[in-house]
Amino acid sequence: MKKQKISDAVIHRLPRYYRYLDDLYNKGVVRISSHSLGEKMDITASQIRQDLSCFGEFGQQGYGYNVAELRAEIGHILGIDNDHKLIIIGAGHLGHALLQNFDFAKVGFHLDSAFDVSSTLIGDEINGVTVRSMDELDDYVAQHHPNVAVLTVPQHVAQPLADRLVALGIRGFWNFTNVEISVPEDVYSEDIHFVDTLLTLSYHISRTPQE
Amino acid sequence: MKKQKISDAVIHRLPRYYRYLDDLYNKGVVRISSHSLGEKMDITASQIRQDLSCFGEFGQQGYGYNVAELRAEIGHILGIDNDHKLIIIGAGHLGHALLQNFDFAKVGFHLDSAFDVSSTLIGDEINGVTVRSMDELDDYVAQHHPNVAVLTVPQHVAQPLADRLVALGIRGFWNFTNVEISVPEDVYSEDIHFVDTLLTLSYHISRTPQE
Repeated sequence: MKKQKISDAVIHRLPRYYRYLDDLYNKGVVRISSHSLGEKMDITASQIRQDLSCFGEFGQQGYGYNVAELRAEIGHILGIDNDHKLIIIGAGHLGHALLQNFDFAKVGFHLDSAFDVSSTLIGDEINGVTVRSMDELDDYVAQHHPNVAVLTVPQHVAQPLADRLVALGIRGFWNFTNVEISVPEDVYSEDIHFVDTLLTLSYHISRTPQE
Repeated sequence: MKKQKISDAVIHRLPRYYRYLDDLYNKGVVRISSHSLGEKMDITASQIRQDLSCFGEFGQQGYGYNVAELRAEIGHILGIDNDHKLIIIGAGHLGHALLQNFDFAKVGFHLDSAFDVSSTLIGDEINGVTVRSMDELDDYVAQHHPNVAVLTVPQHVAQPLADRLVALGIRGFWNFTNVEISVPEDVYSEDIHFVDTLLTLSYHISRTPQE
């Protein structure tokens, strides 16, 4: 299928499309109209048609979208079938929570190791994943070639750790440290800013219903 | 100070401004030019000047911004001084991680209680906060009037729990359940979509450096 250049705004919305289509797919829904999908997602049908037209000819007048097909195509665009290998750096409370609860495989990430500096955590097995010593990191990465690292470490080690991981060949960061890290142009960091989201919440509840 | 209507795009950027200004403030920086702030934040000086002009007359030609003043004003707009009271529902791994590591007070939220259904967690004290039984929730909210709830519970209980909390008077949700919850118009939910951010990361690393 021929694809045109996809805008940042559309890329930003793709994961949400995928999430909704995945849910419909798992519920056994075969097709859905842009109107129904729009109602679920609280966006207009025309916005959906415009966004999805970037990926090719999906919807059919009077039929709607084939859920399995569209889900697979959006998943493909998102790189879900690229078999990313991921490691978690920092097996404290947050790292532990991700290891325990987050379904990495569902979004195409293979997780097989976590690392920590704490001797009380090293050797633990959490949800089938072994926590290794940071001393083993270089050898492990050289052997297993993970391409993504989750950073659940204290803020002050975020940047030196990122530098070390980039040098080892890591190309993507899922960064929970609440500080922005500097990475080379061909490396990407997705930052989870807990503080920003809580401040946004504060903004909104400080206004409604008075304003 | 007179304020004009602030656009969604600007609101979206405010927490990041606040984060940078707070960092500068804590480092003792007294003033900063839009040029220097822009370099730090990787945005243009003119974008900054345009954004900040929404809040009044801050920058001065040849002087720049007064860091403390601008930080306080943006904090005020974000509602940091509104003394939000927050409860955490779900003291499992993620709730525990937030209780242990997240500095709620720094962004103007007062946290004094967490709730769970698990008898192994009820009665625990985490970072000075007691985990209570969900059976105590109604009485607690009636007495202490928290206005924000953090949802760190399993997906299938997210919506019924949100309905219950809205009925009790909760006006804001910090929602970590990875499902979107329906709330009345005068209630606001800020959703942390771990899945979406990881898919965005997948998108970007699936492309660079080939494309």
